[in-house]
This record gives sequence, structure tokens and C-alpha cells, in this order.
Amino acid sequence: MHKILRTFAFLLLSVLACSPAFGQKIFDGEDGYRLWLKYDLLSDQQSIKTYRKQISSIYVAGDSATTTVIRDELSHALSGLLGKQPKFVEAVGKHALVVGTPSSSADIRNADLSELKGLGKEGFVIKSLELSGKPVTLIAANTDVGALYGTFHLLRLIQTEQPLRELEIVEKPKIDVRVLNHWDDMDRHVERGFAGESIWDWHKLPDYTYPRYYDYARANASIGINGTVLNNVNANAITLTPHYLDKVEALADLFRPYGIKVYLSIKFSSPQLIGGLKTSDPLDPTVKQWWKDKVEEIYARIPDFGGFLVKANSEGQPGPGDFGRTHAEGANLLADALAPHGGVVMWRAFVYANEKNEERSKQAYSEFKPLDGKFHDNVLIQVKNGPIDFQPREPFSPLFGATPKTPMMMEFQITMEYLGFSTHLVYLGTMYEEALQSDTYAKGKGSTVAKVVDGSLFNNHISGIAGVSNIGTDRNWTGHIILQSNWYVFGRLAWDHELTTADIADEWVRMTLSNDEKVVSTVTDMMMRSREITVNYMTPLGLHHIMGVGHHYGPGPWVKDLGREDWTSVYYHKAGKDGIGFDRSPTGVNSVEQYFSPLKEEYAKAETTPEELLLWFHHLPWDYTVKSTGRDLWDELVHRYYQGAADVTAMHNQWQSLQDELDPLQYHQVDMALTIQEKEARWWRDACVTYFQTFSQRPLPKGFEKPEKTLKEYMDMRFPYAPGQG
Amino acid sequence: MHKILRTFAFLLLSVLACSPAFGQKIFDGEDGYRLWLKYDLLSDQQSIKTYRKQISSIYVAGDSATTTVIRDELSHALSGLLGKQPKFVEAVGKHALVVGTPSSSADIRNADLSELKGLGKEGFVIKSLELSGKPVTLIAANTDVGALYGTFHLLRLIQTEQPLRELEIVEKPKIDVRVLNHWDDMDRHVERGFAGESIWDWHKLPDYTYPRYYDYARANASIGINGTVLNNVNANAITLTPHYLDKVEALADLFRPYGIKVYLSIKFSSPQLIGGLKTSDPLDPTVKQWWKDKVEEIYARIPDFGGFLVKANSEGQPGPGDFGRTHAEGANLLADALAPHGGVVMWRAFVYANEKNEERSKQAYSEFKPLDGKFHDNVLIQVKNGPIDFQPREPFSPLFGATPKTPMMMEFQITMEYLGFSTHLVYLGTMYEEALQSDTYAKGKGSTVAKVVDGSLFNNHISGIAGVSNIGTDRNWTGHIILQSNWYVFGRLAWDHELTTADIADEWVRMTLSNDEKVVSTVTDMMMRSREITVNYMTPLGLHHIMGVGHHYGPGPWVKDLGREDWTSVYYHKAGKDGIGFDRSPTGVNSVEQYFSPLKEEYAKAETTPEELLLWFHHLPWDYTVKSTGRDLWDELVHRYYQGAADVTAMHNQWQSLQDELDPLQYHQVDMALTIQEKEARWWRDACVTYFQTFSQRPLPKGFEKPEKTLKEYMDMRFPYAPGQG
Repeated sequence: MHKILRTFAFLLLSVLACSPAFGQKIFDGEDGYRLWLKYDLLSDQQSIKTYRKQISSIYVAGDSATTTVIRDELSHALSGLLGKQPKFVEAVGKHALVVGTPSSSADIRNADLSELKGLGKEGFVIKSLELSGKPVTLIAANTDVGALYGTFHLLRLIQTEQPLRELEIVEKPKIDVRVLNHWDDMDRHVERGFAGESIWDWHKLPDYTYPRYYDYARANASIGINGTVLNNVNANAITLTPHYLDKVEALADLFRPYGIKVYLSIKFSSPQLIGGLKTSDPLDPTVKQWWKDKVEEIYARIPDFGGFLVKANSEGQPGPGDFGRTHAEGANLLADALAPHGGVVMWRAFVYANEKNEERSKQAYSEFKPLDGKFHDNVLIQVKNGPIDFQPREPFSPLFGATPKTPMMMEFQITMEYLGFSTHLVYLGTMYEEALQSDTYAKGKGSTVAKVVDGSLFNNHISGIAGVSNIGTDRNWTGHIILQSNWYVFGRLAWDHELTTADIADEWVRMTLSNDEKVVSTVTDMMMRSREITVNYMTPLGLHHIMGVGHHYGPGPWVKDLGREDWTSVYYHKAGKDGIGFDRSPTGVNSVEQYFSPLKEEYAKAETTPEELLLWFHHLPWDYTVKSTGRDLWDELVHRYYQGAADVTAMHNQWQSLQDELDPLQYHQVDMALTIQEKEARWWRDACVTYFQTFSQRPLPKGFEKPEKTLKEYMDMRFPYAPGQG
Repeated sequence: MHKILRTFAFLLLSVLACSPAFGQKIFDGEDGYRLWLKYDLLSDQQSIKTYRKQISSIYVAGDSATTTVIRDELSHALSGLLGKQPKFVEAVGKHALVVGTPSSSADIRNADLSELKGLGKEGFVIKSLELSGKPVTLIAANTDVGALYGTFHLLRLIQTEQPLRELEIVEKPKIDVRVLNHWDDMDRHVERGFAGESIWDWHKLPDYTYPRYYDYARANASIGINGTVLNNVNANAITLTPHYLDKVEALADLFRPYGIKVYLSIKFSSPQLIGGLKTSDPLDPTVKQWWKDKVEEIYARIPDFGGFLVKANSEGQPGPGDFGRTHAEGANLLADALAPHGGVVMWRAFVYANEKNEERSKQAYSEFKPLDGKFHDNVLIQVKNGPIDFQPREPFSPLFGATPKTPMMMEFQITMEYLGFSTHLVYLGTMYEEALQSDTYAKGKGSTVAKVVDGSLFNNHISGIAGVSNIGTDRNWTGHIILQSNWYVFGRLAWDHELTTADIADEWVRMTLSNDEKVVSTVTDMMMRSREITVNYMTPLGLHHIMGVGHHYGPGPWVKDLGREDWTSVYYHKAGKDGIGFDRSPTGVNSVEQYFSPLKEEYAKAETTPEELLLWFHHLPWDYTVKSTGRDLWDELVHRYYQGAADVTAMHNQWQSLQDELDPLQYHQVDMALTIQEKEARWWRDACVTYFQTFSQRPLPKGFEKPEKTLKEYMDMRFPYAPGQG
């Protein structure tokens, strides 16, 4: 007995010895690698007891690569969360967790669950019921991948300490194609990446794989992301050569058990670049044959290859327009090659061609609306949420609702190209929600962007949503722990856009940081307010595109005299003695005409335009009275800038109030980032206010601290090595 | 009691739950981040018991940042290794581990240890003795940093399960300046880096620091490395601007407690590039003033700044030669600015100027020997181990021993630019040892390179050694776990070049992999043979510089027709119908004349030239009889290539025989890399043999498998995205 006690004491101390509290520097603790799948021992002893009773054994039916993934995840997760892995069994037992499909399990087949009927290939059911006479918790689906999604859902319930009694969960994703887009280059540079370099080590593939590839797959499967576009939309044709297809194939094989398909961005001129053809004209028979052969080559290696993502005739990329052909002709060329194999084309609508004189925000609509109905069945048009380029705030793109016959796929940006790189705490869930819940009025009230995107508004046969990834080789994947939540919320909304982003934030905080109520309420509050805070210190009241030139780092409202007018900042804010803002109303370039009524009319007049979009749609004098506060425009602008910067300090104080409740390394990482964010928010504030003041010629309101530097000093700052440059 | 038992059982299971054996995929296990400082529980229970008795408490005297580092390391290490951290106490106790200096501890002061007298600022003593009447293990030094070095030495003894009884260890580094050189650019690209990107996140410094910075410092302190040159020798002047000095300062502050000084590579034209001066002429008074001011600016921030590393008038870098001045004048300009602050100049001798017609391997000697004695006191000349460029095998540089009045500093390459990037298992200890133990005969027999470098041969007042780092952001730091050993052996040899690299390999294996005797003997055997194996499949018999052009990836003996002859491969092997090899003997370009007798005479004739350098010094016919085997040259060449490739397969088998003894993730990582190495060794073999065969016009010996591809296929391979390109 004495000896047993001594041994246990030894082990107890071993456990304690590993804890960061035991005399180690602040560099120990949760480094963020485990994302929201930490699976640490739950803090509530009662919960642990209850869960252990409810899951006294695990029966995973079937014998595929995916069922192995399910078993591994349950083992890993439950041994961590509950301190003890329930035993794996080979049959349904009392209080078992049962996972399977009608084809892998006779018990499930015989249960003949009606819920399964409408669930397709990815949906799942989680039920507390009797199976073969025994009370179990059942995760059932039509496929093993559906069962995997159900498994992660169940684990989320446990991670967030929710009850497992009387479960009746039926889930089915609302959108079909739910993909990450990696703007990763072959040299491992990530365009607009701020979290290290590309996680794909092309040089060492296919023979060398990293744990990170597996953990990437797990993380994505846990939020229902079912595809990944591996390479930059500014594509490199080399990716389609055999040497690189070997590497792509290795990744596809690795991801397949997790329900993740691999896609590639392609360069439209590939037939010429790597095929030795004289043209890439979509109507040329040799070009058609080349793509047919190339696609067959791919599918011989990767039978479930997802398809192609295409950026064409945009920012210098080649495309069908180079041959006098339309976007539809270009897309259909690829679509026809992919169709026999079940692949899709995601054709980007991010265009603002040189030849037209239209205001930039109008061009995508102008170019694509006339093509509605001309795309073949396996083509989706992929358009950014707003009509310019991922600004802190934009109205939704007028293309949403404008193409009843063509699936319109949402492209969100998860990486923070215009929102502070990886040192600003910004939860993008509120931005995504704002975009998805916008009413297009395409078919009257309630024609939300979400219903366009999920295909239900126009009864499209396929739907999609893409997120430009914020993932890199940084240990914590995203450069900032809180920014992991943007990857998370993208996945959760892609699965079900009716979830509220407040609820999703709550989930994420519980899983990633702590179930402690003080932590949950404080951090979710920070997250829910963060986007508006950043809008305020960067681009309040509908301002947009006033960042540093090229690298997009820091403020640059003075940027002018570039190759194209619509690459400058002055083009977008049009600040002058007379006022500020872009007149997109009928008295200006009339971009509002692309929206349906009543938006078209609401946006037409400043008085009925939502304040947050005021300067997006209107050029207003400095003394324009802002309705909500009664201040004149100049004062309101200044107030917003100063409020934003002050709110970052407040957010930092909120975070620091949690020091005792948080893991020390998670705490420290975010604390350091908030220090930077405070400095940069003040920098944005001071640079923009000082610059705009040269036009307004009005003073700062009383009591507002003077800027730290002169305008010239702000304008002279150079950052040649800011990360993520295009 | 029952409850206690249950709690302990719970905790026991928690400990077990964290172990990778508990149902998790192969992506769990030791990822290599902890390097040779894993500090896992020792496997030998008896050792643990004994160490715990011998170290029943710890008394670290003093109250500096360094003593905090010492306490943290001891806490971290001993709680891991022994399962229990001995308690920290505030006075000498029986069986205590006592760490301190005469100034921090009266007990140590009163012990009046004579050993401390000659130990300078970095040496240390470890003694089992009675201190103030109590038996202790004492680590004493003249400074806290010396005590830190002693602490790591003691920990190494425990990690390698060596006895702590009757210790009488006196250590003092033989070389003063022991630095890593990072060829890291400001955009985080690492020139010749194959382990991810630069670990310095310049964009987020100074406010954001990573655990990796601290762990870098710990790892270097553990092997006595006392300085780091942060940036590429192809320098960027921006590093000297205030914005970047903020960041450099943050790193210097972070490293200081670990005894690590920060140095910078500088661009000689900085006065013009960032100073706005019209010239960078070292004799110009405004230039002198500019450097004086700039150095003062640096020392105001970093009082113990190490100094500058300079690549000048080499491969396009600016230098004093641009103004008609000598290397000495250039170096002295900087030296004089640094001298008042205690800084040094490390001036690189890697030159092969365009204007001269001399054979490349002669140029450094020609340019620098005449300048001997002309450099000011705080200048070291830094020269690569061999006279060309870090080839798998080179003779030592004739500059070693040629400059009695000027300290000659060794530059080794740790990163594997010419030795397989980060997928070939090559222990460079044997290469370093070969270089250091080479006899220059500068002052007769026994005038080893080591004695030149450590300053003892010529009684220089300062000495140095540099290693071009193989570190990057890869989780395992070096891209391949075994390649961590090269960082390790560099440090150990820099501290004491009289250690054998076999002993160092033994240390490293025990600390990093396992103390299991099968593992130790097998892996050290692999390591000790690995360099020669790689020489055989890449560049046997003294061949050199026949790699792929630009990226240096894979074989490229056919490379010709470049801007400079001495950038090609054909220049170095000179293969023709008549034979192969570079005649550097008196019948050729007579590079041998730069060596002292009797080397000069030995290298002059093929019969007395060591076989491993045969084709370095001689051009020989294909039927030349190789003495050691009696084969003719062609057959011997082919045999070496095939033997090398076969030996990689044998090495892989050796590794696979250890699967049950090794951590699964360490095992798996190296297993994957060995798969790649086998393929690449065969590729080198086949490409080189096929190519040289076009000249020898002789068949392969019987039984040797035919090459996989044709020569044309080998020559047509392109790797535009091979990592680490310059």
C-alpha cells in the first residue's frame, strides 16, 4: 500500500511537473497548435462523471480509412476530455456511443431511421435512443464522412460541457462546396499571408508529410470544410505538371478520409505554358483536347478531385478575353473537361477590366450579369462579399441575386489583408453574418445573400462558399490565437448560415480558451465588438481602400499617382475642401442602380443610406449632419477614429483582466498582439485624421490628444518587408 | 484512503492518457522541437534514485537575469529527468547542488577555488566537495554566464546518465568568439536555408516575441555558443536603420541573460545607401564619422553589441575595393569605430575577384596573405574551411597558417547547401574534425588548423569560429532531426575542438533520441559513416562543385556556359576523353604552392596525394590505377558512386531496425527522409555516372544496375522552386 501510494505520488508529481506553473518561463503553455481541438481534461468533475456514464464504451461500425479517423479522434479526444478513453467494443452495448451507417452496421440499418433519408452524403443524426434494445448515444449518417462530422459535433457538445441526454440532432449542410482557398505560391510565399509561409512543403512532397497536414485535415473536418484549393489564384501552371501532380496526389490521399477534396487554381494559359500549344483559345479544338487529357490525367491519380478555381482576365491574369471569348466560354471549356468526372469550375468574378471606364464596384456585375444562364451546369461563379475588395466594411456585391440561372458562390476573406494582418484582434463572424443576412430583395423581402449562396432562392442545383485562408506555418496556424476563430466561424457558417455568430463565438471560446464563465463572457464580448472597433479606427462611415500601397500595411489615405486610378486611395475617399466620400448615387456614377428596389432608392439618398455606408455611396460636405449623433461629418469621423483606438485599449484591459483565468502562453501571445494593435490603431487614427484634416481644415474636437507624428512623417514611412505582399 | 487511491488512479490515467501510445496516430510523439533538451523522465530507475539523493536541493546564488535562467532551466530539466524538482533553497545544504560565483556567494568566495583563476568569463568548475562543511555538487564560475554553461554541462551528464560522484571538471572554451551566422533576409527568406523560413519575425518585433527565441537562446547556451549574427552576409543596409535597430535591440535584450551577443552583417555601402553620403570610401573623413556615429547609436541601445560581419568585394557585394582601397583599410574603418566599445569585425575572405585570372581556390590566399599584420587588433579574418565553397570534401584553406599576425577565424557551414538540403542524413562532425585536425605545417608538424583557429599557434589575442546556421521555422528547427546534431557538434567543437566527434555524436544521440544502447550504437554508427557515404554518391575522389546550377539541388556535372567559368561544373571536373580532375599541381595551376611543405610536395604528385583529394589536385587518365583498390580510375569512380547509394539503403535499414526503440514521430520523420535520400542518392549516382561515361566511354562494371533515366532526362530536370535559393 505504502509503495502504491509512493508510486502514485510520483505520478501525481509527474503530472504537476508538466504544468507550466511549475517554475517555467512564460514560454510554456498552450502554444495554439491544437486550435479548438485541445481536448484537455474538463474542469467540471461532475460533467466528467456524467459523460463517462453516458459513454461507457464506443462502437464504431465499419472498416474504412474514415472509420479509423473516427476511432482515433474519439480515442484522442475522450481520453483527454474525460481522463479516460472509454473502451472500444465490437458491438452495441449499454450506454455505448455508437457510430456508423446503415451499410456498416446492421443495428443502424434495422433501426431504419427516417431522419437519414434527406441527409445526403454529409448529414448526420445524433440521437439518444435504444438500439437493439440498449440505450445508446447514436451518431448515424449515410456515409462514413457524415459519421465523422457527427463525431466532431458530439465532441463539440462535450468540449462545451453540454448535456448528452435526450439528444435529437439532425444536421445537414446548407451549402454543398465548402472550401478554403490558399493563396499559396510554389516557393511557399503566401500572398496576403501573415502567419508564416505556406504549410505545403512542395519540395519534400510526396515522400515527406508533416503532422500538420493531418491536423489541418482534422481541424477542417471538425467544422465541415470539405475541400481545399491548394494554390494561389494567381496561379502557376507548373502545378499541373506530373512532378507537381505527384505532390498534389499525396495530399489528396492524405485528406480523403477526412472528407476533404483537393482542388487547384489554374492558369488559363496553361495549354501554351506547359502544353506547348500555340493558343489557349477556349473554342480551339486542340485546346479542348488538351484540357480533356489533362483532366483525365488528374483523375487517373485523384478519382475524387474537386475541380478548378479560376482567376481570369483580372489583374493581369490570362483568360478567355485574350482570345475575344467570354467568361462563360472560358469556364465552359474547363467545365466540359471536368463534367464526366464530377468536377466543378469555380470561376471568379473579381474583375475590373482596364478598357471600361466604369467605376470599379460596378464592373463585376456589368461583366457577369449578361452571362447569366450561359454557364454549364458544373460552373459556379465565385464573387467576393463586396464589390471592391474585402474592405473592413463593404455593402454586399450586387451580383448576389442578379444571376438566377447561375450559382453564385461567396468568397470571404479569412486572412486579414485589410484588417490588421495577424496582430489585430478582429472576429470576422459579425462581418460574415452582416453579408449573409443582407437582403438583396431579388425576389422581394427576405431574399438574403445567404439564400442566394445556398441556392435556395433560385433553386440552383449546386452551391458553394469559399474562404481565403489565414493559415500558415506559424505554430498557432493563424499568427494570433483569436484569429483561429475566423477559420472556425467560416466553417460553421458554411455548414449552417443560420447559426448566430455570437453562438459560434461562444463555442469557439469554450473549446479554445476555457469554459470559465468570466472568460467566455469577456472574450465573446471582445470578439463581437472587435470588427466595428477596427472599422472605426481604419475606415469609419463607409470609407474604404485607404491602406498603405502594395503591402496594404497601415494607413495610406494619401496614396495616389499609381498605374491605375482605382488602385489609389484618393479615388475612393475623394476628400477635398468640399467634403469626402464617393458619390455612387444617381448624382454620381450611379452604382446603386445595380441593386434591387428598395435598396436602390435607399442607397440613392444620404438620408436613407445606413450610416455605416454613408461615404461608400455619397460625397458629403464636412458639415453634413450625421443623424444618429447630430455631429457634423468631420466631427463624427474624428470621433469614430478616436473611439476605435480607445476601444482597442479597452479591449486590451479586458484581456488583461483574464490573466489568472487563462493559460499563460495563450494569455501572453494575445497580450503582446494587443500591445501592437493599440499602437497601430493610434497610428491609423492619427495618420488618417491628420491627412483628412488638410481638406476639412477643421480642428480636432476639444480634449482629443494630438497625433504623435506629423503628416509628412506618416507619409514617409516605408515597409519594404511587410509580409504577404502580392 | 479509498478516495485517495481513486484520485491517484485518475491521475495515473491522466498521465498515461497523454502518452502517444494511447491510440493516437503517428502524428503524435516527439516532434523535435525540444532538440537535445528533451528532459524526459530517465528510463533507469536506479539512476533517478541516485541523482535525487545527490541533488536533494538546489541553491543558486545571485539575483541576475542569468541566475533566473539557471533556476528555470534546472527546474524544468530536473523535474522532467528525475520526475521531481529538487527544492530550491537559499543556502548551502547537505547534498545540495550549489551554483554561483565568488561575487554572488560567500560560500564560494570562501572556498577560494584555485581552478577559477584561469577560467576567464566563461569557464566553470564542477566539483564534488564540501562547501561550508556540507557535501555538495558545486558549479562555480567567475560570472553568472560561466555558471550557466556549467549548469548545462551538469545537465548533460544527467541526460547521458553519467555518474555525479567525485566530479572534478574544469572547463574553459578554447575559442573566444563562437557564433552562428544566419543567412536570413529581411523578408524571412533564408539563403541556403532548408528548414522553413527565418525564425526572426522582423515585422512583429520588437513588441512580439516567440517562445522560439527563448528556446533558441537556451539551445545555444547549452552548447556554449555565445553570439549570433542575425542577418545575411549578402546584407541589407536597412538593418542599421532605427526602425530595425529597435527590433535588433529587442533580440539582444532577450539573449543577453544566456550569454549570447548579437552581431550584424553590414553592407559596406551603407553610408551611401542609408546615410546619404556620396561615398563609402574607408579613408574619407565623412565616412569614418558616419560609422563612428552609427556604431555609437547601436551601443547606446545595445551596450554589449558584438560587432560586424562583412562580406565585401565578393559576389557583387560592395567593398573597399570599389574605392581602390584594400580589405585591411575597409576592415580597419569599421574596427576603429567599434574598438572603443569592445566590438569586433569579422571580415570574410570568401573572395574570387573577376579581374584576376588566378584559379579560384588560390584567390583568397593571394588577396589576404599580403595583408597579414595590416589589420587592427579587433579584426578577425573569417575564412571557409576549404578554398572553394563548402563542398562535401575540400582540403583545408591554405590561409590557415598563412597569417601569423592576423587572427584567422573558421567558417563552417552547418546548413547543407551542398550536402542534400534537409533530407539527407549527414553528420558533419567528421567533416569539421577532418578540417580542424588537418596539419598546416605552418610551424612544423602539429600546426593543426585547430591551433591556428584557437589562436595558440601564433599567440593571437583573439580567436573565433562561425557556423552558417541550418535553423529555420520548421518545428524541428533543422528540417531533419539528425541534422540538429550538426548545430550541436558545431557548438561543442567551438567550445573544445579536442573533443572527438564520435563522443559528441554519442552525447547527442543519448540526449536527443535515447540512452538505449542499441539506439546509441546504431545511430552513432550511421552518423559517423554518413559524411563519407554522401561524398561517395555525390563527389567521390576529390570531385567538387558539380551540383545543380543556382539552387544547388541535385546533380549537375554538365553545368557550363555561365557568366563566370568558375560558376560552372565543367571547370571543376574538367572531364574529357583523356581523363578527369583539376590539375592544381605544379604541372597545372599550381595551387599547391600555397601550402607549406611537406604538403606542397605531397599534393604535387598523384601518388602521394590522399585518395580522397585525388581529383581535387590532379587531372588523371581514366585508366589511372587507384592505389588502395587497384582499380582503374573509371571503375573506382563508379564503385564509389554505387557504394554510396547502396550505403544509404543500408543506413535506412539500420534506422528501420530501431522502430521499436524510438519515439514513433522521431522514427517516422527520419524514415521518410531516408526514403527521399535513397532516391536522391541513386539520382546523383545515375546522373553523374551517365554523364562522366560520355567521356570515359567505358562500360559500367558487371552487375551494376543501369541508370533509371537517360542523360538527357537528367539534364532536362528543372527545379525552379527548390528552397533556399540565393
